[in-house]
Amino acid sequence: MNNWINLDKRDAFKQLCETPKVELKEVMTGENGAKRVNEYSVEMAEGMVYNFAAKAVDDKTLEVLQKLADEAGLIDKYEELYDGAVINTGEKRLVLHQLCRGQLGKDVFADGVNKRDFYLEQQRKIKVFADKVHNGEIVNEKGEKFTNVVQIGIGGSDLGPRAMYIALENWARKTGNLSLEAKFISNVDPDDASAVLNSVDVAKTLFVLVSKSGTTLETLTNETFVKESLIKAGLDPAKHMVAVTSETSPLAKNEGYLDAFFMDDYIGGRYSSSSAVGGCVLSLAFTPEVFDDFLKGAHASDVLAKEKDIMKNAAMLDALIGLYERNVLGYEATAVLPYSQALSRFPAHLQQLDMESNGKSVNRYGEQMNYVTGPILFGEPGTNGQHSFYQLLHQGKNIVPMQFVGFRRSQLGNDLMIKGSTSQAKLNANVSAQIVGYACGKKDEDPNKVFDGNRPCSIIIGDELTPSCLGALLAHFENKVMFQGFLWNVNSFDQEGVQLGKVLANRVLAHETDGALKAFSDLFGI
Amino acid sequence: MNNWINLDKRDAFKQLCETPKVELKEVMTGENGAKRVNEYSVEMAEGMVYNFAAKAVDDKTLEVLQKLADEAGLIDKYEELYDGAVINTGEKRLVLHQLCRGQLGKDVFADGVNKRDFYLEQQRKIKVFADKVHNGEIVNEKGEKFTNVVQIGIGGSDLGPRAMYIALENWARKTGNLSLEAKFISNVDPDDASAVLNSVDVAKTLFVLVSKSGTTLETLTNETFVKESLIKAGLDPAKHMVAVTSETSPLAKNEGYLDAFFMDDYIGGRYSSSSAVGGCVLSLAFTPEVFDDFLKGAHASDVLAKEKDIMKNAAMLDALIGLYERNVLGYEATAVLPYSQALSRFPAHLQQLDMESNGKSVNRYGEQMNYVTGPILFGEPGTNGQHSFYQLLHQGKNIVPMQFVGFRRSQLGNDLMIKGSTSQAKLNANVSAQIVGYACGKKDEDPNKVFDGNRPCSIIIGDELTPSCLGALLAHFENKVMFQGFLWNVNSFDQEGVQLGKVLANRVLAHETDGALKAFSDLFGI
Repeated sequence: MNNWINLDKRDAFKQLCETPKVELKEVMTGENGAKRVNEYSVEMAEGMVYNFAAKAVDDKTLEVLQKLADEAGLIDKYEELYDGAVINTGEKRLVLHQLCRGQLGKDVFADGVNKRDFYLEQQRKIKVFADKVHNGEIVNEKGEKFTNVVQIGIGGSDLGPRAMYIALENWARKTGNLSLEAKFISNVDPDDASAVLNSVDVAKTLFVLVSKSGTTLETLTNETFVKESLIKAGLDPAKHMVAVTSETSPLAKNEGYLDAFFMDDYIGGRYSSSSAVGGCVLSLAFTPEVFDDFLKGAHASDVLAKEKDIMKNAAMLDALIGLYERNVLGYEATAVLPYSQALSRFPAHLQQLDMESNGKSVNRYGEQMNYVTGPILFGEPGTNGQHSFYQLLHQGKNIVPMQFVGFRRSQLGNDLMIKGSTSQAKLNANVSAQIVGYACGKKDEDPNKVFDGNRPCSIIIGDELTPSCLGALLAHFENKVMFQGFLWNVNSFDQEGVQLGKVLANRVLAHETDGALKAFSDLFGI
Repeated sequence: MNNWINLDKRDAFKQLCETPKVELKEVMTGENGAKRVNEYSVEMAEGMVYNFAAKAVDDKTLEVLQKLADEAGLIDKYEELYDGAVINTGEKRLVLHQLCRGQLGKDVFADGVNKRDFYLEQQRKIKVFADKVHNGEIVNEKGEKFTNVVQIGIGGSDLGPRAMYIALENWARKTGNLSLEAKFISNVDPDDASAVLNSVDVAKTLFVLVSKSGTTLETLTNETFVKESLIKAGLDPAKHMVAVTSETSPLAKNEGYLDAFFMDDYIGGRYSSSSAVGGCVLSLAFTPEVFDDFLKGAHASDVLAKEKDIMKNAAMLDALIGLYERNVLGYEATAVLPYSQALSRFPAHLQQLDMESNGKSVNRYGEQMNYVTGPILFGEPGTNGQHSFYQLLHQGKNIVPMQFVGFRRSQLGNDLMIKGSTSQAKLNANVSAQIVGYACGKKDEDPNKVFDGNRPCSIIIGDELTPSCLGALLAHFENKVMFQGFLWNVNSFDQEGVQLGKVLANRVLAHETDGALKAFSDLFGI
């Protein structure tokens, strides 16, 4: 039976629209609020929990959300996906990012090989290479060890790996796992590459060029930029560069690179932190074992995502609540607010993951849909955001659902008791306070100091942001986005919306323009 | 006559709602598009232009927007503000950030002094201090020159100064104006302070503590953190710290600091990049002369904002078009997309500036309004964003108006001709292409490759991101936000929405909680 049908054709969705709305302020006030906090909690991988007490749902809503999950066959679709079906219908491709992290179902064959073996083989090759760099078998022209690694890539080859590196840098420093300091060049703005090159000793830097096809404008331009700077410094680019590319690309077997690690068509850029795209730079910056822990955490999340019961499947429940907020309550955006400085660029990665996956207007058959799809996603770490845009979230005219993340312990463990509490306690007191403030609001005689409340929040709480915990967190969001794509009946794995800009930019560079495009390029003097 | 009335009471607003909508795709296609690009352009300060060809307005819309500006007395209100009226009605305060940059009207007296003199005096004191640090008169315990400056502050004491520093770091490096490398500690997350302290030689670091009252939780906690680390290193904190604070704060005349520079109640955090809050760290990191150029550029924008004609007042026109998009066309968010890596954190600053100023539900008299106010604002630099969330902007279900920024020249001037074009040309070809793609869309037989177009964009174009240009750009957005606040009849200068969280967090730390708040703090083990 083909169960890939539009959301508004589903009985459970119709029922969801008619389910009585929950007055969040009411249910979260008093001892009932405490009861919700204790009960509305789903265990995640790596000891984390997903707490949705402060979301505008109750047992009745949850019952209908479970029906919707069942009717839409979310778990069957997930099984189809990990068993190797062509889920990316637009590009006619399998979707295999979970397989990098572990086997969830049947053996999957493509391109004539067992794909699990293929991913393991890349991980093994990366480990051999990284170990040689770390132990001094692979060194620079002067026989010196490398101290820096610079990833050259854009979009998914940049945002995910960069966010993961930043998330673990402090942890790695404390635990002795920081092997090479990592930097990233992404933008075609020449000031980006120049600034990064100015900030490292190129003689001791290894560059990782990430390009599947070997044709991404920004990446190839920046590669040339880097090679020129190596040559200017009297160095041999071939001794400083590795490639992460497809097996069939011109970069694959090329003497211009120390080594090449392979990616394939079945993992899109925004899902590639677990593939060689993230694996190479993270194994070099930290160790292959750290990257392996990251994958284990992600796999643990992937396994939990197989649960049919929404109270045991945080990613699926998160997806369903997000859909309820978007399609029934009518909210247009979502804020992701990690109370962890280490996750400072995690929202920027989720912004790509979510908006590029589900920011679509046609379903997987190319038909217009009569309902909205992916929300706008933005966020900054707390407590910083509290002193910035939280004003609008508390008292603005539109309601923005929020997704908090917090940890019991800091990464560096360097903390002080000031005025009776540690900084970590202050941080977590703030996130707790925000959630309750958003949900319950506050009355006041001065209308300018009134908080209406009823602003829904969830929170993921963990012990400490370790590699495995980060992997689990990332996979949670990847799986959430996947489940939402299933519900909306969109293809979450292509990105045709990025093509038009490329075509028009090339026309400008070829001076083949007219009308407004010519006028704008004239303004820039191109 | 009191002209502070709600937007929906204005005749011109009613007329605006009835003005025929412009089909952007239609008017931007063909030679008419080129005509619009050439005509729909307003000169800004420092040689920049604000181009709104790709906004869904025409001559008729502009006529009504001009009427609305006149009817709302935007320029009179601006005059009231810079002449020293109590525009911040909630807190009963003057609003004087423009006065830091130059005199626009009458002398303004408050706290018994001429406020222009007060701001100039702080700039002079900062210059004397910074010059001494730069020329080696003020040195560390060992007689060594300082190499780093670290700002300790949060919200407006962090986002603006940090964004400005990042915006000019490369320019300063190239022009020999980088005196000290700057870093910032903001988050109460102890990993933030620890990581920054690990990354500098504290013996050669000067810390700038920014706190108006001397009571901000995060900032005082981080100050103690820093002082402990100085003491641990055998250093004297009093020889490493300066304060930016109010004259009446306990930090003002305090032997614990090398010097103190003053701020007052008339410049809110998010408007304080031009005050001593930005002035101290930027004068130290660069030179006082660089900061002075920054202020000159901002002042030039402030002067242009006095123009009654919307075709000569980019900030006012930008404000009006934004309001049209929000209140008539019904768009909920705005994306700010600078095609300049140097402006990577500029959107985060604008996010605070805009959302904290106008994310309000009551008007300046505390009355609920029947219309929406400030939008959600987010953004990342291009071309990076193209490979991330632009998918949703091109093909998503909701329309998000966009505000681009671009420059003809890069800051470092280090560029290469690759495949017939420089990186800077590629960058600007991309921004031109995006605008036209968003506006005009594209037909295709494959519905998945169809672009509907009609997605409105404006762009600010300048020659190069210099200090004066940056100042002009910042003031443009500050003035835009101010004009929108006037139109919505809100107080853009208070932030009562941030208070509730503080109160509740203190309750958690004092263990005076019950219900959901106790349950959440238990989950964190506080």
